[in-house]
Amino acid sequence: MIGNVKSKYYKISDALTLRSGEVLSTVDLSYECYGTLNASKDNAILIFHALTGSQHLAGKNVALDPVNPLWTAACHTGWWDHFVGPKKAVDTDKFFVVCVNYLGGCYGSTGPYSKNIQGERYGESFPRVSFHDIVDTQMSLVDSLGIDKLHAVIGPSVGGMACLSLATRYPDRVGIVIPIATGFGATPLQRIHNYEQINAIERVPFDSEVDRKAGGSPTRDTGLAMARMISHKTFVSLSAMQKRAKKFVESTPRSGSWYALNHPLESYIRYQGEKFCERFDRHAYLRILDAWQRFDLLAETDCADYNTLFSRCKQQRYLLFSIDSDVCFYPGEQEKIERQLIESAVPVMRITVHSEKGHDAFLLEPHLFAPHLNFVLTGQW
Amino acid sequence: MIGNVKSKYYKISDALTLRSGEVLSTVDLSYECYGTLNASKDNAILIFHALTGSQHLAGKNVALDPVNPLWTAACHTGWWDHFVGPKKAVDTDKFFVVCVNYLGGCYGSTGPYSKNIQGERYGESFPRVSFHDIVDTQMSLVDSLGIDKLHAVIGPSVGGMACLSLATRYPDRVGIVIPIATGFGATPLQRIHNYEQINAIERVPFDSEVDRKAGGSPTRDTGLAMARMISHKTFVSLSAMQKRAKKFVESTPRSGSWYALNHPLESYIRYQGEKFCERFDRHAYLRILDAWQRFDLLAETDCADYNTLFSRCKQQRYLLFSIDSDVCFYPGEQEKIERQLIESAVPVMRITVHSEKGHDAFLLEPHLFAPHLNFVLTGQW
Repeated sequence: MIGNVKSKYYKISDALTLRSGEVLSTVDLSYECYGTLNASKDNAILIFHALTGSQHLAGKNVALDPVNPLWTAACHTGWWDHFVGPKKAVDTDKFFVVCVNYLGGCYGSTGPYSKNIQGERYGESFPRVSFHDIVDTQMSLVDSLGIDKLHAVIGPSVGGMACLSLATRYPDRVGIVIPIATGFGATPLQRIHNYEQINAIERVPFDSEVDRKAGGSPTRDTGLAMARMISHKTFVSLSAMQKRAKKFVESTPRSGSWYALNHPLESYIRYQGEKFCERFDRHAYLRILDAWQRFDLLAETDCADYNTLFSRCKQQRYLLFSIDSDVCFYPGEQEKIERQLIESAVPVMRITVHSEKGHDAFLLEPHLFAPHLNFVLTGQW
Repeated sequence: MIGNVKSKYYKISDALTLRSGEVLSTVDLSYECYGTLNASKDNAILIFHALTGSQHLAGKNVALDPVNPLWTAACHTGWWDHFVGPKKAVDTDKFFVVCVNYLGGCYGSTGPYSKNIQGERYGESFPRVSFHDIVDTQMSLVDSLGIDKLHAVIGPSVGGMACLSLATRYPDRVGIVIPIATGFGATPLQRIHNYEQINAIERVPFDSEVDRKAGGSPTRDTGLAMARMISHKTFVSLSAMQKRAKKFVESTPRSGSWYALNHPLESYIRYQGEKFCERFDRHAYLRILDAWQRFDLLAETDCADYNTLFSRCKQQRYLLFSIDSDVCFYPGEQEKIERQLIESAVPVMRITVHSEKGHDAFLLEPHLFAPHLNFVLTGQW
């Protein structure tokens, strides 16, 4: 088991020109490491977090330094704590595991919630980021650690997009590629759900005029809460929500609201939204949604077709996971990746796990993933 | 073909006590009739509209009287014009067809958008309505027309809930019952989608401070537009949206928005929302969503179980329609109704139509429904 951990910071030495052409004069990345990098530096695994995850993969991290009001108790336990540690699916007795908060995120890496050189939060002025930028900044950190080739790269959900971007743009720098419940790009239904969320964030005012920038406790960001309600149903299956909803029947009336909640499912969804907006920043959320909306693996790699793209990847091995009840990244999306890899003669194995929990099974059910993760990471395939 | 038509008005003679206990001192219903009521008054068909439909079922109605700014060009052609008329699925050479704007609606019936005795729009002060109330007010109109027993009642989508309420609460007053793409109550996914819409309406301010009550042209109700975006994807299949989206690539930036649209599907969805809020009232929309959220056929009928309920209905005949691509009322919902009717020994026939258009197939593809509608309405089953 991983005990208490602290996030570290890596500063990119030069100004960073983003894929959009915009320039960030300074870039810091917050990251965490687990296990020990061996002498030949060939046991490193880079893991990308999902949409609202963080660098805090495993163990307990009770406070960020500098203090970050978004680092609530919900963040303290690593998001993949059940998967990463000694003798776990990703075995930190064997591997050196690195996880980095996305550029544009809100947990210590440079993003809308971090401060510019004038000491003010970037907020809305923060530029667009792409998965290209997210991957490149993390590879700069990998370089700084003296790692020439990653043993593996893993990414669930939108982290899988980063994973595919890295694997195809740096084909000689990673051996094993493990995209989990992800796809080649935003699907039509994702585009719609994401656009709904963007509208909610951009059109719904804060509940109070207290400015979060002033440093007080976070005011309620109703738009961000609404966005989370919209996305939550794509992450958690209806049956799981109905089971959980029994615990949440609280339904305090809201000021300015005519409608009175009348079902536990409504109070459950509302609670999910309200809890979430305590721990995330609307502008960071918008940056990552925007990157998701624009992600397309071919455009990302400036490549005309998938065969050309994956012809560079024949030395890699891919382990793909699908979740049968996933209504965010439907299994068909991973099937497309699998078919393409087969066509391009890249070694691939796809596993569909059967779960009642939906997309979030990748967070909740280590037993469904651990045997294959372990098997492939330890070179048994 | 039905030519030009006008809506009529029916005034309920007494004050109306709603199911909630609240009282409306005056109630008007706007309605339209097609065909001729025969001497024995046994050829009448009552058709309930869907969520945002109106009394205007067939033909052209270019203006409501009194003038209603929500009656835009999008309303002028009857919503079931392809289905209702001489020699059509619902044959007005044979039947006298009645359609009524819901109590709580915004096209002439008493609702939030109509004026109270002080001459001001009710707006937010309008009470909650239920399908119970909607049905009872329409039965009052049926009484006033001297119709003792309806030949048939038809209701698509949420109109199917009204249809089931009428059929089970007035079992001796209707012979043929035709619920289309509907269910016994709000499903978990509908609850969530509806709650998202309610939040959008209640939390998103108008784009401009111009008050619609002042009688000017409708200001943009961004919350209502967002609600429509959320619901639209449940009414129209993804494949149909993708085909249509090619026509909509306009993406004028909106003030106060950081995010730039980047896909035709986004501008299509946005257009759908913006077009809709020109023709509907937020408070009316909330009333009908609220009725949908609270609808449950057993509660509606004060009945403990379905067998007791349908034991009253053995003289009726039910024709149920399912649409295979429907993601609003999934075919499983109609299957539940069918199984219950079979168990209760009520004559039932269920037809699943195969369409690529999703829920809205009931509006768009008369050929999929017409033969069975005609067959059953003309007593051939």
